[in-house]
Amino acid sequence: MKKIEEIQQLVKSHLASLDWRIEPCGLYEPIEYVLSLGGKRIRPVLALLSCQLFDENIEKAIYPALGIEVFHNFTLLHDDVMDKADMRRGNPTVHKKWNENTAILSGDAMSFKAYELLAKCDPSVFKSIFDAFTETSLDVFEGQQYDMEFETRNDVTIPEYIEMIRLKTAVLLAGSLKIGALCGGASERDADLIYKYGIGIGLAFQIKDDLLDVYGDEKKFGKAIGGDINCNKKTFLLITALEKSDAASKASLMDWISREKFDRTEKVKAVTAIYDKLDVRTNAESAMRAYYEDALNALRQISVAEELKQPLYDLANNLLYRED
Amino acid sequence: MKKIEEIQQLVKSHLASLDWRIEPCGLYEPIEYVLSLGGKRIRPVLALLSCQLFDENIEKAIYPALGIEVFHNFTLLHDDVMDKADMRRGNPTVHKKWNENTAILSGDAMSFKAYELLAKCDPSVFKSIFDAFTETSLDVFEGQQYDMEFETRNDVTIPEYIEMIRLKTAVLLAGSLKIGALCGGASERDADLIYKYGIGIGLAFQIKDDLLDVYGDEKKFGKAIGGDINCNKKTFLLITALEKSDAASKASLMDWISREKFDRTEKVKAVTAIYDKLDVRTNAESAMRAYYEDALNALRQISVAEELKQPLYDLANNLLYRED
Repeated sequence: MKKIEEIQQLVKSHLASLDWRIEPCGLYEPIEYVLSLGGKRIRPVLALLSCQLFDENIEKAIYPALGIEVFHNFTLLHDDVMDKADMRRGNPTVHKKWNENTAILSGDAMSFKAYELLAKCDPSVFKSIFDAFTETSLDVFEGQQYDMEFETRNDVTIPEYIEMIRLKTAVLLAGSLKIGALCGGASERDADLIYKYGIGIGLAFQIKDDLLDVYGDEKKFGKAIGGDINCNKKTFLLITALEKSDAASKASLMDWISREKFDRTEKVKAVTAIYDKLDVRTNAESAMRAYYEDALNALRQISVAEELKQPLYDLANNLLYRED
Repeated sequence: MKKIEEIQQLVKSHLASLDWRIEPCGLYEPIEYVLSLGGKRIRPVLALLSCQLFDENIEKAIYPALGIEVFHNFTLLHDDVMDKADMRRGNPTVHKKWNENTAILSGDAMSFKAYELLAKCDPSVFKSIFDAFTETSLDVFEGQQYDMEFETRNDVTIPEYIEMIRLKTAVLLAGSLKIGALCGGASERDADLIYKYGIGIGLAFQIKDDLLDVYGDEKKFGKAIGGDINCNKKTFLLITALEKSDAASKASLMDWISREKFDRTEKVKAVTAIYDKLDVRTNAESAMRAYYEDALNALRQISVAEELKQPLYDLANNLLYRED
């Protein structure tokens, strides 16, 4: 049984060995660039960890796993264009380094390259992983659309928010796990259970992210605290605060949301004080724990020996107690 | 055997019956819109005509054919963003009617919807049509990349130009034909032959387009003559003219290309006069005829009765003598 670190290394070396030095280089160089920017490669790692539950020969899942990583980076590339983001992992984004048209076209090509990699699998599983991948990808775009729509709404409910993060974040983790399982020869039942595990950890992960933005340790978190507060991002905390607040707190929150000019530190402090008063942290933590439990419940039901599942229990655990 | 018009009607009614009234409508409404703008639906028609060579039950190829049409419209949608085009078939483009982010995201979703439709086929042909579609799509992006790069070059050669239009235009026609043939149960040899037929008519079609822009009848052509000349588009005619011209003609052409302010009618008249003097029309017409002959040669070799091929002979013929 391979450890997470070993699998991560395997993913990285295979990813680096993909050949993007092909013509026209104006199309493929930006793809090589965006894939070289690094990251934890969590999705392909999940795919291989999941494959390993059912078959120790995880090489079977490597190309589909890389396909998922290429897809994920394609969504980041186009998201950066849509967000007009200048930097990604400390480097200029593709539309900054090249231009917007290049970012659109190279991104488009990446989704087809993702399918090309996905198809490098055992023919017996191809249709099932194709279906999982296509459905998952469409979910991701739906999630992105809801996320964009939420920016201009102040009446987003918690169920709407959960559905958005399920689509935008959780399904791709879940889909990666499902695809890995199918490559390993999992039954449909087990593939669905590992998908459920992925949804659970994905939702818990996103709520943890919302919590870290406000209650994280700036040094460990690696980015400034309160980024979500400053841009009025509809997080679990803000939506819960708007729902739980009395008239005075609500007025104060809405006032901070509507201000165009403000001192960032002051805004973070004021909004955090409202969050504290309403104790929205407890709501978020209990929701996070509930999704974490859902994940573990699904994992327990998978019909393989418990010791094989250890890396996935560890992963869920690390997630819940992570500080970055 | 169904006639072209009948097949076109079949495509249109199936396309109209696709359900895009799904949530989030902010993502799917623009897709429904762009697909409703019309067009000759030439690619799905080719797929069904090709299927019909090998199997009279052309319903087998209908969803893959629609997938190709969705893909084609996705490329138009993103091309319009890249070209900053305001209008498409007499209607505002998606990024004008909604906004650029919507155009990017809905376009992205379309490529996955295209795959979803493609997969609605007989499982026995799925992998082969998947491979043909993925390869074809990547070719289209490569062609688009070359086309963009040619805008800022004045040293494009005819072989480079032919390769660009092969990728950008011809392969999708050829891929449609190949996918239709595979759905109909064609042998690999016949599928490759119909692909060759598609490349031939695609190249001939594009050169005809270049010719019509200069030598077409404005009323029949449906758009103003000289559009390519005015924007210095590297067409078969311009590239040939730059290659054939003596020093004086070349200087005059380069002068017109470099002018930022000019009278459009005057420019079209002057450049056309150079084309006439160099007789580039003859070069273009003989190249077009050669590709047309290549197409017919491939079609002749396909191992089905000649009378079944009649619609495809007619189509090639109409193409060569079309005036719009």
